[in-house]
Amino acid sequence: MLVSSDSSLRVVQYGLGPIGQAVAEAVLAKTNGLTLVGAIDIDPEKVGRDVAAVVGAEHPLTGVSVSGDAEDVLGTTEPDVVLHTTTSFLEGMTDQLVQCARAGAHVVSSTEELSFPYGRSPERAERLDQVAREEGVVIVGTGVNPGYAMDTLPLMATGVCTDVQAVHVERVVNASERRRPLQEKVGAGISTAAFEEKKAGGTFGHIGLRESLLMLADGLGWPVESVEEELQPVQAEAYVDTGFREVKAGEVAGIHHSATGHIHGGPKLSLDLKMYVGADASYDVVRVDGEPPINLRFEGGIFGDTATVGMLVNTAPLAAQAAPGLQTMADLPVPRAFATTPSQEASSSA
Amino acid sequence: MLVSSDSSLRVVQYGLGPIGQAVAEAVLAKTNGLTLVGAIDIDPEKVGRDVAAVVGAEHPLTGVSVSGDAEDVLGTTEPDVVLHTTTSFLEGMTDQLVQCARAGAHVVSSTEELSFPYGRSPERAERLDQVAREEGVVIVGTGVNPGYAMDTLPLMATGVCTDVQAVHVERVVNASERRRPLQEKVGAGISTAAFEEKKAGGTFGHIGLRESLLMLADGLGWPVESVEEELQPVQAEAYVDTGFREVKAGEVAGIHHSATGHIHGGPKLSLDLKMYVGADASYDVVRVDGEPPINLRFEGGIFGDTATVGMLVNTAPLAAQAAPGLQTMADLPVPRAFATTPSQEASSSA
Repeated sequence: MLVSSDSSLRVVQYGLGPIGQAVAEAVLAKTNGLTLVGAIDIDPEKVGRDVAAVVGAEHPLTGVSVSGDAEDVLGTTEPDVVLHTTTSFLEGMTDQLVQCARAGAHVVSSTEELSFPYGRSPERAERLDQVAREEGVVIVGTGVNPGYAMDTLPLMATGVCTDVQAVHVERVVNASERRRPLQEKVGAGISTAAFEEKKAGGTFGHIGLRESLLMLADGLGWPVESVEEELQPVQAEAYVDTGFREVKAGEVAGIHHSATGHIHGGPKLSLDLKMYVGADASYDVVRVDGEPPINLRFEGGIFGDTATVGMLVNTAPLAAQAAPGLQTMADLPVPRAFATTPSQEASSSA
Repeated sequence: MLVSSDSSLRVVQYGLGPIGQAVAEAVLAKTNGLTLVGAIDIDPEKVGRDVAAVVGAEHPLTGVSVSGDAEDVLGTTEPDVVLHTTTSFLEGMTDQLVQCARAGAHVVSSTEELSFPYGRSPERAERLDQVAREEGVVIVGTGVNPGYAMDTLPLMATGVCTDVQAVHVERVVNASERRRPLQEKVGAGISTAAFEEKKAGGTFGHIGLRESLLMLADGLGWPVESVEEELQPVQAEAYVDTGFREVKAGEVAGIHHSATGHIHGGPKLSLDLKMYVGADASYDVVRVDGEPPINLRFEGGIFGDTATVGMLVNTAPLAAQAAPGLQTMADLPVPRAFATTPSQEASSSA
């Protein structure tokens, strides 16, 4: 039995971009378990305003103003947990995480590369782990993907198996249903030439696919010999109007990003991700070639805009009870919804 | 990153009934990670024989003989973990668990009532927790159900949600595909009158449904006002021959066992389990009425004969790294397959 939601965790929201705003809104919507005590963002249009107004929450003003001075906020609000949503990459951002940990706060971050940093950034991982242990706090990266759909979930799918020969994960996201930033992120409406140019830049595509694959392999104890990644455009077959963007037939509708992990000479782990506007349906599938075989499907998919927020909020109490250090979602207890309140109903005997 | 499978855990198998035999066989089949160092059973037909011969494993003789003297085995083999598979109930069995813990071993048990003992056996739970803490070991109950399909898995399904209003879990098991003990357990081939007589005995039906419901509620932090359980026979619509049993139309094909948890005046958690011979298909479904909504389905179900074994074996390394005490699957890291080895393949570049 884990944290009681009676004792509320003091939360600082670090970063008020689209995800950070949604996270702050979710924290404000909780009637117990989490209390927003500070908000950090450097955007001059947000600094100084009440966080409830900035995020457009259906919530009375909080008295918590957005501040651009992270050190001041972290030093004065005594946070239990920082929900950190500033960027996808560890480069140039490790200091932010260190700063939060030095303030004695657990850090739950949406930074995709933090979800399993041992492959791409072993030195940063080591530093973060050391700082977290020194301060007695947990640092963990999470979200719907990476963090759940293509790593923690498939790992959990293997939990019943006495033997596993391969794991295949497929995620199809109809980006038409998602917010504007996701549609932009996948290149909806750009030309194939522009896609190739972005791709050559090196930071395009889904960030975290390699991390998911390495986390899955690590969780299974499988030594990865090589990872092949492939990133291709999905071309629109017909005109699509998402409300945010218009995409003509032949233009880029989104991305098809895949990663394959070779173990013992063969492709044993495959992650296949399509995110594009105009997809027929969203779904998530995990197939385990094992004993017993597993064939798991989320009909309609796992809706990422909300699910990323859910994972950040729900990981806070788990991080607060885990052993200090840099952790991954494979180290924490099974994620579960935190501080939700089913509606009151008139009892049939009332 | 959890236990490395390089350092093998010393395992004692306590109980060599059908499940215990399958667990011992799975441990023997591992080429790393787990080493069987002892086996306990009181059956005179098993005592004194090599455990590999008793379980019929495709494994050379081990030199480990089955012993009826639990104290001697636990005292001399220095086990890291005891895999305990003797009964479904805590009554009269708590001493066995205490005995294992006193030997300094973690205990992973298939005892259904142990999966979440706080509701039905709070005093036994307190005693087990105290002993486990004193000895610095973990005691945990697990299996496919309870332990995964109707508690840990639905909890995990809510992990992405910012709001949850209700959780519905449905498990349909075609008992024709399962081993004889499961077919007997669900009453396949008995008369409706015999079913009612067994039901009146109080220990018939699926053991652990209430535990699953209470674990799910506890994980969500939801206060359960009442639990309604219902147990009905599923009647065979046509003749079924499973190879183990013949069931005529109108006879009992199996059980329909459900549990509903009332929270805030309404039915917010429902677990619906059907296990019967002649079912069209096996499947597991979790529906979360939440934000985002979740609709998860295991096509073909989670095959229980193997999955229970998988959960016991795979929980061993997780228990060995968790904080001492009585734990549940909601407290441990996400279950995942342990010490599996994908087959070697000729590399395409070789």
